[in-house]
Amino acid sequence: MRLLLEHESKALLEKYGIKTAKCIFCETEEQAVKAAKEIGFPVVMKVAGREIIHKSDVGGVILNVKSEDEVREVFQRLMSIPKAEGVNIQPQLEKGIEVIIGVAENEQFGSVAMFGLGGVFVEVLKDVSFRLLPLTRRDAEEMVREVKGYKLLEGYRGVKGDVGAVVDLLLKLNEVVEKEGIVEMDLNPVFVYERGAVVVDARIVVGERKRFEMDVGDISFFFKARSVAVIGASTNPIKVGNSVVRSLMSNKNLRIYPINPNASEILGLKAYPSVKSLPEVPDIAIVTVPAEFVLDAVREAAEAGVKGVVIISSGFKEAEVEEGKVREERLREIARKYGIRIVGPNTFGIVSVVGGINASFTPMFSEVKKGRIALVSQSGGICHYIIHKFRDSGFSHILHLGNRCDVDFPDVMRFLREDENTDVVAVYVEGIDNGRGLFEELKRLCSEKKVVVMKSGRSSVADKASVSHTGSMAGDYRVFASAMKQAGAVVVETPTELIDTAIAMEKFEVSGGVAVLTIQAGLGIVAADIIESSGGRLARFGEETVRKLKSLLPPITLRENPVDLSFSGLNLKVFAEVIDTVCRDDDVGLVMFLYAVAPPSWVLPAEVISQIMGRITKPSILGYSSTPENYAEIKEALKGSKTLIFDSVERAAKVAAILSEKRNYF
Amino acid sequence: MRLLLEHESKALLEKYGIKTAKCIFCETEEQAVKAAKEIGFPVVMKVAGREIIHKSDVGGVILNVKSEDEVREVFQRLMSIPKAEGVNIQPQLEKGIEVIIGVAENEQFGSVAMFGLGGVFVEVLKDVSFRLLPLTRRDAEEMVREVKGYKLLEGYRGVKGDVGAVVDLLLKLNEVVEKEGIVEMDLNPVFVYERGAVVVDARIVVGERKRFEMDVGDISFFFKARSVAVIGASTNPIKVGNSVVRSLMSNKNLRIYPINPNASEILGLKAYPSVKSLPEVPDIAIVTVPAEFVLDAVREAAEAGVKGVVIISSGFKEAEVEEGKVREERLREIARKYGIRIVGPNTFGIVSVVGGINASFTPMFSEVKKGRIALVSQSGGICHYIIHKFRDSGFSHILHLGNRCDVDFPDVMRFLREDENTDVVAVYVEGIDNGRGLFEELKRLCSEKKVVVMKSGRSSVADKASVSHTGSMAGDYRVFASAMKQAGAVVVETPTELIDTAIAMEKFEVSGGVAVLTIQAGLGIVAADIIESSGGRLARFGEETVRKLKSLLPPITLRENPVDLSFSGLNLKVFAEVIDTVCRDDDVGLVMFLYAVAPPSWVLPAEVISQIMGRITKPSILGYSSTPENYAEIKEALKGSKTLIFDSVERAAKVAAILSEKRNYF
Repeated sequence: MRLLLEHESKALLEKYGIKTAKCIFCETEEQAVKAAKEIGFPVVMKVAGREIIHKSDVGGVILNVKSEDEVREVFQRLMSIPKAEGVNIQPQLEKGIEVIIGVAENEQFGSVAMFGLGGVFVEVLKDVSFRLLPLTRRDAEEMVREVKGYKLLEGYRGVKGDVGAVVDLLLKLNEVVEKEGIVEMDLNPVFVYERGAVVVDARIVVGERKRFEMDVGDISFFFKARSVAVIGASTNPIKVGNSVVRSLMSNKNLRIYPINPNASEILGLKAYPSVKSLPEVPDIAIVTVPAEFVLDAVREAAEAGVKGVVIISSGFKEAEVEEGKVREERLREIARKYGIRIVGPNTFGIVSVVGGINASFTPMFSEVKKGRIALVSQSGGICHYIIHKFRDSGFSHILHLGNRCDVDFPDVMRFLREDENTDVVAVYVEGIDNGRGLFEELKRLCSEKKVVVMKSGRSSVADKASVSHTGSMAGDYRVFASAMKQAGAVVVETPTELIDTAIAMEKFEVSGGVAVLTIQAGLGIVAADIIESSGGRLARFGEETVRKLKSLLPPITLRENPVDLSFSGLNLKVFAEVIDTVCRDDDVGLVMFLYAVAPPSWVLPAEVISQIMGRITKPSILGYSSTPENYAEIKEALKGSKTLIFDSVERAAKVAAILSEKRNYF
Repeated sequence: MRLLLEHESKALLEKYGIKTAKCIFCETEEQAVKAAKEIGFPVVMKVAGREIIHKSDVGGVILNVKSEDEVREVFQRLMSIPKAEGVNIQPQLEKGIEVIIGVAENEQFGSVAMFGLGGVFVEVLKDVSFRLLPLTRRDAEEMVREVKGYKLLEGYRGVKGDVGAVVDLLLKLNEVVEKEGIVEMDLNPVFVYERGAVVVDARIVVGERKRFEMDVGDISFFFKARSVAVIGASTNPIKVGNSVVRSLMSNKNLRIYPINPNASEILGLKAYPSVKSLPEVPDIAIVTVPAEFVLDAVREAAEAGVKGVVIISSGFKEAEVEEGKVREERLREIARKYGIRIVGPNTFGIVSVVGGINASFTPMFSEVKKGRIALVSQSGGICHYIIHKFRDSGFSHILHLGNRCDVDFPDVMRFLREDENTDVVAVYVEGIDNGRGLFEELKRLCSEKKVVVMKSGRSSVADKASVSHTGSMAGDYRVFASAMKQAGAVVVETPTELIDTAIAMEKFEVSGGVAVLTIQAGLGIVAADIIESSGGRLARFGEETVRKLKSLLPPITLRENPVDLSFSGLNLKVFAEVIDTVCRDDDVGLVMFLYAVAPPSWVLPAEVISQIMGRITKPSILGYSSTPENYAEIKEALKGSKTLIFDSVERAAKVAAILSEKRNYF
């Protein structure tokens, strides 16, 4: 690690065509006078020293030095600052809009770029954006535009900033950081003018950049297994070793081998004393023995030729005791040595719904319906919560990764990319070790499938990272969320949003704003509020649409978005015309109809609801509120249709918001 | 309306002890020179003119004028600005932290004070706070602390601001505005120093302040009616005039009089040709005839001595046609003339669940359970939505106000304050006319009962008001929300939050932070995230609590908030000790237990859940996720207990956040 002084940092940047306020480094008073004259008065004088990080805080930046005498006096003063190695002299620039650009090494992701407006924006409001290096032009454009302070660059009090110049500067970071081996960079401030941008101060540290493991293996065989051994199978129905066997038994075609030296039969299946004694080499093994026996069990399985194991047993890294960590390290060594793949330890297991393999300690997963959504979770509790809450939904696979001693997110991303049974991937993350590996595989996955990601830890409890200096952004939730978006995933904040969004993505793709239709104004207004305040976008109807709606609906109703048809909605002919009008509008990407049944006057029968939703030619969501019986009837009537149905206006609007997210800067 | 010039504005403020950068108004060059000498160089010179609103924008503020010659030159320059009436000269002050204080007349609320930090905070970030005048000290303290820019006053880059001086200044507004009849005031900027604050520029408009109708009448007789006439009763089952009779008939003790000159009997009840022909004067009448017959019907009822009518018919103000507006005005005149009270028009009606009066067109409201929550709504659709979604909840009354031609929010607030059947009031508002009346009655209501308010229109669709000048804040959602909080209500954002919060408030009062307990870490982390990011507060456990939790739980678990008991939670003895420890902690005001059943290994039977929740001595919420049958069983087991139960972690956490809202500045 080597810190460059300001003049060295700037010289380095200039090599790559980045414009800086060039400075002359002076070690003597005479050099300083000469330099000042060369530059021309007034000049700025700044103390230089590798150990002086915040020059301003020690009185080390003097503006507006106007004469030779002043230069001499200031030089002496600056050199008397402890650790001063010299003084930099630079021209006094016209003040521009101050922005801050930084690069730092993130523990999980490697090189991350940061952008923010100077002053209170970064320091008080923490109003910054992040993207992993290297940046695409789109990444750089988004970085600049997603901070609140962007409005200052757009123009404030008659002053505008050259956004193009900032984007160009950000894009140059790719090459500088890569070629020079930069591990930390603070360009603070950068002055942005109406034309161009100049780096006024720079601090660069070069060193060895973090490298990440990019080896990604095949794990598809876990999900195609035809024979499974359960090491630690038990006759005791409250033991995990028993419930795993029960889970597996839901598939009559699976060859299940309980391993237990003290039992001859478990749940009616012949038990074996060891993996070696089995009539065949099983495709995979599930391990449920206590932690202290796990290493031997895995080694035996590997030696017998088993390709993969799922370790349900806990007592490893998560146990926060030295013993557990050592054990997990040993496991990893066994995986390497034998080439056996390990899921877990400390997982409830994995479930391939489409493959008919419930390799988990929860038999109820066998009842999950088949579908095209894969759920990947770092928490077992969240999986159980989701399966209860979304009992009607279908999944392709459900994976709980546990401690990830071997099989990690990147392997899973690759598997799901290649898996023909999966269209949408929903990921719940708590913490990661190899974010860069996840990012790269996720990017590949997103280019072929739809992905929605939720990460816990967005609140201050988990995210205590300060952003006033780019060096301290490790672990920041926002870095993670930015990286996931950069890879092409949709990022959401709760488990319900995760699955609601996945289900919606499975049904349709939204391109445009949301049109809200209702026959009860209040519902439409509430939905519009949620959509707008959650970062979604309501469609802006074209003139033709508005004109037509005004001709179709009486003055009593809301005839713009949200559209309240009121009594007219009870007339199917008018309703159909309103739908046709709205669907013809180019800005509409999603049509939402909201309705709370109020008998006897406000009732649309199930067949009418079907006709209404069937008439909509764009992606559609129905928010339907009624008795449980009537709701079930409507759900049945819409089964197999492309309409997504919710009994909650809030959830319907939230999903609409997520899918219509504002990206109005492109 | 009269605009005061800067020197007049400042003189007025000084009368009330508000410190200003006093200025001398000069109409001639000689006066200016004399004034500058008197003040002492350097001085600030500013153009003065009633029609010049933004002095800076026309080059009308010149700082650092250092000599007599400069004064003369600047005076001439400023006087050449169009509409200049003179020049103000004031001392050049040391720069402090800039804040902006404003007062404006709001259409709904009258005098509203605004506070914000200068520069980008108000103009770019719209980071301002509002409170209605007069302010209490608490109001003023909250105003200053709730803006993001407050951090600047707390201390930034070594500079701090005198928060006490700002609060004192805000409090002085009460008297100044009242006594001087101020309708608009911009103190911009005010310099705040480490000690004291000085108004640097001021612009005041005096005039007639908006006065509000504060007459609030009694409407309790609607909810105690024993005899009801239905004017427009119909034999046709799909007509509103038929369903209203059906709704009322759910109460066998009510004397119901269908009025219809063309029928002898409706739904088995004897029909009458007119109100006059009834055997008694009914307590109230429900009007369902077409709009053009409504005026006559109401007049007839009033003349017969009926005290109140509910007009369900539409075709009034909401119809956006002149005819409708005129009709509504006539209705109001009739109400005044006869002293008859009118609910509506354009309402689905009112329902007194406890009084057994379903005076609405929706018979299903007769099935609502009795409870102690009153629901007041400006939208019929939202009422229907809520009743479907919260079919298990109990209500005292459900009121849909419709067009509010006579009975308005203030009347309802008074009624509910005096109503012994209501403990909690849930209010859904779309728009108001007499916000000040609502505010005053709400304040009274909040001093006796718990109130939760939701207003739609918080998104940009409805809230397009710019806040860069205080004059334009009319209609701002934030003014409304601030006023409701100021009155003592809890403000929420969705219908589900509205009722979830009301139900929680009915059960308990929270004083402190939230302790989250779980046996599945993921659920606890997700809840903690939602609580913190929704403005709630997690309890900060004391040292004693943390120490005790560490002794109770193995290292594998999270032993701080959220507390993950993991496997230990399956041991009821340990669980009880954890609960006792957490409940003993002074900072804990609410205990939440989250649990997703995962059979067979992670199962707590219903009686254990009851014991766990029963052990908690503080307000408690259970987030329980299981099969519908098992969930119903748990609900039954907890019936009558003080525990609030949800099947959604998200909703549980959101309510916990709302009830533990951070007010960490007191």
